[in-house]
Amino acid sequence: MTLTAELIAIGDELIAGATADTNSGWLAHALEGIGVENRRTQVVGDDDDVGARAVVEALERADVVLVIGGLGPTEDDRTRHAIARAVGRELVHSAEAWDGVRAWFARAKREMPASNRRQALLPAGAEILPNAVGTAPGFAVRVGEKLVFALPGPPGEMRAMVDAQVLPRLRARALGAGGATAHVRFQLLGLSESLFADMVGEWMNRDANPLVGCTVAEGVLTASLRAVGTGSDPTGAARAVLARRAAEMRERFAPWIFREIGADEEPGIEHALGRLLIARGLSVTAAESCTAGLVAARLARVPGISAVFGASTVTYSNAAKEALLGVRAATLAAHGAVSPEVASEMARGAAERAGARIAVAVTGIAGPDGGTPEKPVGTVAFATSVDGAIEAEVRRFPPTAREAIRTTAANVALVLLWRRLSATDTA
Amino acid sequence: MTLTAELIAIGDELIAGATADTNSGWLAHALEGIGVENRRTQVVGDDDDVGARAVVEALERADVVLVIGGLGPTEDDRTRHAIARAVGRELVHSAEAWDGVRAWFARAKREMPASNRRQALLPAGAEILPNAVGTAPGFAVRVGEKLVFALPGPPGEMRAMVDAQVLPRLRARALGAGGATAHVRFQLLGLSESLFADMVGEWMNRDANPLVGCTVAEGVLTASLRAVGTGSDPTGAARAVLARRAAEMRERFAPWIFREIGADEEPGIEHALGRLLIARGLSVTAAESCTAGLVAARLARVPGISAVFGASTVTYSNAAKEALLGVRAATLAAHGAVSPEVASEMARGAAERAGARIAVAVTGIAGPDGGTPEKPVGTVAFATSVDGAIEAEVRRFPPTAREAIRTTAANVALVLLWRRLSATDTA
Repeated sequence: MTLTAELIAIGDELIAGATADTNSGWLAHALEGIGVENRRTQVVGDDDDVGARAVVEALERADVVLVIGGLGPTEDDRTRHAIARAVGRELVHSAEAWDGVRAWFARAKREMPASNRRQALLPAGAEILPNAVGTAPGFAVRVGEKLVFALPGPPGEMRAMVDAQVLPRLRARALGAGGATAHVRFQLLGLSESLFADMVGEWMNRDANPLVGCTVAEGVLTASLRAVGTGSDPTGAARAVLARRAAEMRERFAPWIFREIGADEEPGIEHALGRLLIARGLSVTAAESCTAGLVAARLARVPGISAVFGASTVTYSNAAKEALLGVRAATLAAHGAVSPEVASEMARGAAERAGARIAVAVTGIAGPDGGTPEKPVGTVAFATSVDGAIEAEVRRFPPTAREAIRTTAANVALVLLWRRLSATDTA
Repeated sequence: MTLTAELIAIGDELIAGATADTNSGWLAHALEGIGVENRRTQVVGDDDDVGARAVVEALERADVVLVIGGLGPTEDDRTRHAIARAVGRELVHSAEAWDGVRAWFARAKREMPASNRRQALLPAGAEILPNAVGTAPGFAVRVGEKLVFALPGPPGEMRAMVDAQVLPRLRARALGAGGATAHVRFQLLGLSESLFADMVGEWMNRDANPLVGCTVAEGVLTASLRAVGTGSDPTGAARAVLARRAAEMRERFAPWIFREIGADEEPGIEHALGRLLIARGLSVTAAESCTAGLVAARLARVPGISAVFGASTVTYSNAAKEALLGVRAATLAAHGAVSPEVASEMARGAAERAGARIAVAVTGIAGPDGGTPEKPVGTVAFATSVDGAIEAEVRRFPPTAREAIRTTAANVALVLLWRRLSATDTA
């Protein structure tokens, strides 16, 4: 049996939609990496009763319950109270937790507001999880064979605590639970979800092993395979089942698959691309119109990218494309700003101007206005330049929201550049 | 009594954390705008049983249950089955829904895969909600006095369907439920959550009316006030209660409040800033180092921004700051790249180079490396230029994750520019 988890994110701002809950997705992914399966994520408000009930219900279903948020110093931070009520313990003042809070303020050379004293309250018998980044200590409470974790809401604090405190505690348990899983994900470009489903057929049945899932995000289809193995060598069994189906997938979807990612690998293509550029010492730049900085910002996520990434240009207007990238007025007049010709001149100009060996250019119609019958909203032209050799193409994305089209275009630009570079050995 | 809702997002990729659930936050916010209060968001996998149980439980607690996702054409799309089971109806083939799916493929001039036939299955008695953007029709099922909605997962399709189909149906109900709420949000810069809590005192008690909530995101503290009114004029009562507390807030927090937002207003500062720039016809550009395009990308979210935003520059390296923005080598050597002096020269150079009246520059240390005792990770210098007049400042953000620091820095850059422009009448 796989070890199962449920996540509960707490905060009025989260259920009201004022703040996005990015924590639970990250945590679920981290748990999956050590073989702990998230079964349900709940988001509830800052209310003792509702929080406590959610914890009680989750404990009935899952082995581990992880509660995120609501450990702050203010009156609306209710997680300590909710968990104490759910597990039937008193809230007590912990001298150890209190020392940790005071030490944080001493290190940060800040004066401590009185309200931070609340952060030293814990359910009786809880184990303190030190917070390396912020003031709020987390804690773990054992309930019979099950575990409840309380984690701080700020993403940086939560992630540091999960890496240092939670995963090590759960890893040993997950291995002891018997059974094993093995995962792989394929990323495909240029195939719709419907056509994928038709081609994949009964492999997607809900009782198949491996279980095949499929999702489309930002123009890329990700097919995930999750195999379960049992018996005397569960890990070996899971891997064997996975390997057979993965080989069939590679054959059937060869024209569309551009990448395979393991369970531990960052899914963002910018990381694969950035690693490749850094390893080969290839200087890179971007010229962006509709994406307006999203490609550059994705590249800059990669630690160490400054070794190869010095500058990038956003040319939103035609005048800027001419002035800053040397796109010719005649090309703009003949083909329009959204054309492989203009994208090519943008990529060439950007590479020359930044003195970079590699450039990627994006120009498209993100809407809501600006579409024509020939070039509807969602039309985007891309060009890549590798040591002066240009390749360009036009793609038509579904005419969804402006921001979705821009995000998709930025992602596809990175995919196209990565695909081109990984197919050659430019060095 | 306020009309209450619960949201259920369905998808293995969501509980596994492979894809972020951005839908439920958006939907909760849209519902709040018409006075429907989200009480709980759940994310569950592609499993009939789990989905059906989640719907049944949510129906016990809330007036309206909105299920998002799992309406696609593939075998792992289980929402139709889960809702049919939850409300005890058969799944039937709907000729009307089928016509809608076929019409979409005809319009898009695409061949329809056989798997799309599944999208015409609906629980018996369900009302079809047409999908203006994609293939999957949504539906609504009445269960006694309660309502269950099924909405497609792609954000563009979901949002269009909510705006056109769901909100109009719920608005009438929300008004009829009696009672009324009134909301306002204050945004503050430069005050920590702890200090806010100390200063706000008992206003944050959980039984206070208005209820005061507080959240910090991307360097900005948002305090939300939610008043409830009853009696013969519930709307008037709610507004009066809200107005009193809001006046007290404005007085007590005057040095930090930079903006008030109503329930209908987009919370992103780029929208307020973009509207102001467009209204005054002020051309704008950005010069970005650590944020590497995030400021430009935020500006480009604003529809119509192309009237004032032509170009922007990412200068990640010192060499690029010199070559592309004219920052002096002597300034870099004397003060370092993260200094008000360099930020000022970046803003000046960017404005001159782009021929823009307004410029904003950001240069900082996003980590994980590059920090020093004097300039630790999280140190960011900002400059704004208005018709050549430069203002610069340095801020220190908590040393959290690289991406969090960059997102915070981009947001604060937009806030600083907006605050400066809205305090003057540059035209």
